Amino acid sequence: MDRRSFLRTSALGGSAAAASTLAAPAYAQGNRTLTMVTTWGRGLAGVHDSAQFCADKITELTDGQVTVDLRAAGELVGAFEVFDAVTAGQADMYHGVDYYFLSQHPALSFFSQVPFGMTFQEYNNWIDHQGGQELADELYSIFGLKAMAAGNTGPQSGGWFSKEINAPEDFQGLRFRMPGQGGQVLSKLGASVQNLPGAEVYQALSSGAIDGTEWIGPWADEKAGFQEITNIYYTAGFHEPGPNLNLVMNLEVFESLTPAQQAIVQQVSRSSNLWTMSLFMANNGAALQRLQSGGVRIAEFPDAVWDAFGSAAEEVLMEAAGDDLYDRCLESYQNSLQASAQWISTSSGVFSQQRDRVKGY
Amino acid sequence: MDRRSFLRTSALGGSAAAASTLAAPAYAQGNRTLTMVTTWGRGLAGVHDSAQFCADKITELTDGQVTVDLRAAGELVGAFEVFDAVTAGQADMYHGVDYYFLSQHPALSFFSQVPFGMTFQEYNNWIDHQGGQELADELYSIFGLKAMAAGNTGPQSGGWFSKEINAPEDFQGLRFRMPGQGGQVLSKLGASVQNLPGAEVYQALSSGAIDGTEWIGPWADEKAGFQEITNIYYTAGFHEPGPNLNLVMNLEVFESLTPAQQAIVQQVSRSSNLWTMSLFMANNGAALQRLQSGGVRIAEFPDAVWDAFGSAAEEVLMEAAGDDLYDRCLESYQNSLQASAQWISTSSGVFSQQRDRVKGY
Repeated sequence: MDRRSFLRTSALGGSAAAASTLAAPAYAQGNRTLTMVTTWGRGLAGVHDSAQFCADKITELTDGQVTVDLRAAGELVGAFEVFDAVTAGQADMYHGVDYYFLSQHPALSFFSQVPFGMTFQEYNNWIDHQGGQELADELYSIFGLKAMAAGNTGPQSGGWFSKEINAPEDFQGLRFRMPGQGGQVLSKLGASVQNLPGAEVYQALSSGAIDGTEWIGPWADEKAGFQEITNIYYTAGFHEPGPNLNLVMNLEVFESLTPAQQAIVQQVSRSSNLWTMSLFMANNGAALQRLQSGGVRIAEFPDAVWDAFGSAAEEVLMEAAGDDLYDRCLESYQNSLQASAQWISTSSGVFSQQRDRVKGY
Repeated sequence: MDRRSFLRTSALGGSAAAASTLAAPAYAQGNRTLTMVTTWGRGLAGVHDSAQFCADKITELTDGQVTVDLRAAGELVGAFEVFDAVTAGQADMYHGVDYYFLSQHPALSFFSQVPFGMTFQEYNNWIDHQGGQELADELYSIFGLKAMAAGNTGPQSGGWFSKEINAPEDFQGLRFRMPGQGGQVLSKLGASVQNLPGAEVYQALSSGAIDGTEWIGPWADEKAGFQEITNIYYTAGFHEPGPNLNLVMNLEVFESLTPAQQAIVQQVSRSSNLWTMSLFMANNGAALQRLQSGGVRIAEFPDAVWDAFGSAAEEVLMEAAGDDLYDRCLESYQNSLQASAQWISTSSGVFSQQRDRVKGY
């Protein structure tokens, strides 16, 4: 193990990390097959592709020393069982979004999505350069896990509705699918919120079990077929401006990899992160045009609704405070977000507005 | 070579690619050391770090099978000699920005930066999912090269001036450092434009050889020390909204790598791309505040100046048209940019404005 690897591992802190660096590491020999489970149904546009990309690239870069066998949601365990399965060692890793598991620890919201929180770029500023990964390592090690940012859907649409939202009161009594802290925000506005995995949303909407739903964005939503059931589509949403998808490995399995294999898993994850983000962003524009041509009506929430989202999001964020690790994540996250947001609005915000104005985009 | 690798290599087209896939591949055996040269002086903030990240990670992921020896600008060849050095096989790869080499082929602007063109995200949408990489492979193979996106500085600042810019006429006679097509745009506005590598800019500004300069953004500019010489800083610029840094390898060297090693170079490049972008974006906010505290005055170009930038940028872009490959790049680039820009403004544009309004960022 070279000095850099030693320093990085030491930075984890804690006795488990110390043991793994001070004891002679016992790397598994020969070719291995590791099992990946996911929170995605097989074929769900973009998110399943992201998991498959990670599995294929780890296999390819290790030249088959580590072959990753992908079992989509329901093939080995259900979408919401992957956290427990990898903690218990039933599977070696999962690809998914961790706001499904807030009951395990509320701080998982920082490593998936805080409503009204970070975009893709802001999240990666934090995770790679402003202390985010160190906090993630501390949190996930509680569960015997190692998490790496491995995908992002980009800003998610506000969702599919059968009636217009003109005021915060219009959410009262609305049966709506939204996971994570975003769902808790809509609950505060009086909605009856349901947390369904992606593969079950179409059926729930179709049967009338829910009145509306958010899923991802125009491309993934079109493939899911929600335009067949409802036709009012809010393109900008408060709840998931840049949800982070993690590759989460059982920590003992991760530490049993050679240093080169560990590095491959980490770099493949970051590569997948950008590849996945770009996949969504490259396909959303054309999909939105097709949806509009097909009769979907595009809408935008009025300022008063955004204000209500903002107040309720702040309440939800603060209600979980009091746990030491949550509080440290919150402080680190908010400091990073504020610095990132200001520079982005000063630089690319001004540029994009001027370019789009001058060029007529 | 598995089927995916075969298909990807075939997509390159051309006889060189066909030969390399149809002949039994002769992969170099044993451990190798490859030399990387760069367009960056050693220690230039962010850009040298990006090159070093690529070199270190390739070495680490291949477990030393491929050790990359980084020679910064001036250590083996000069900043502007790296393209020729890698084409000729004097070095195995370079890390740099290809608008320095527009005299080799004008289409290199699409794979570095078109003024008034793509941001980081828009570029990656195009390169990975809308035909960009295929066009890059066609272009670089003319020179016996293979290019991979491997870094980005994010939106570059408009630059350092000793007088305010209140109208397009204020550029007349101004001696200003700006490379690439951006520099050609300023020439059209009457500036006397100089194309200097980064490591030479401070001296030129300090000696009075130039009146002003752009370099990167607050963090890298502060480290370069330009605030010691001039004190009017335009934070948003038209010229480099998301300049792409490439890792460019000699094509024969790339093809002599095993499929797993080739995959490592490709995934490390994409990982470096995001890591580098986040490095700049994470550091710019605090650096800008320090610059302001130190007496630097922040300014923004008025609309009339942005209009002039836009018109001149369009002229520059079209003046190079007429070459078949340039024209195909232009069409592909513009179609992708327009679709990306519309969705980004509808989704993250609306979100960020609402969030920053509600939260007071």
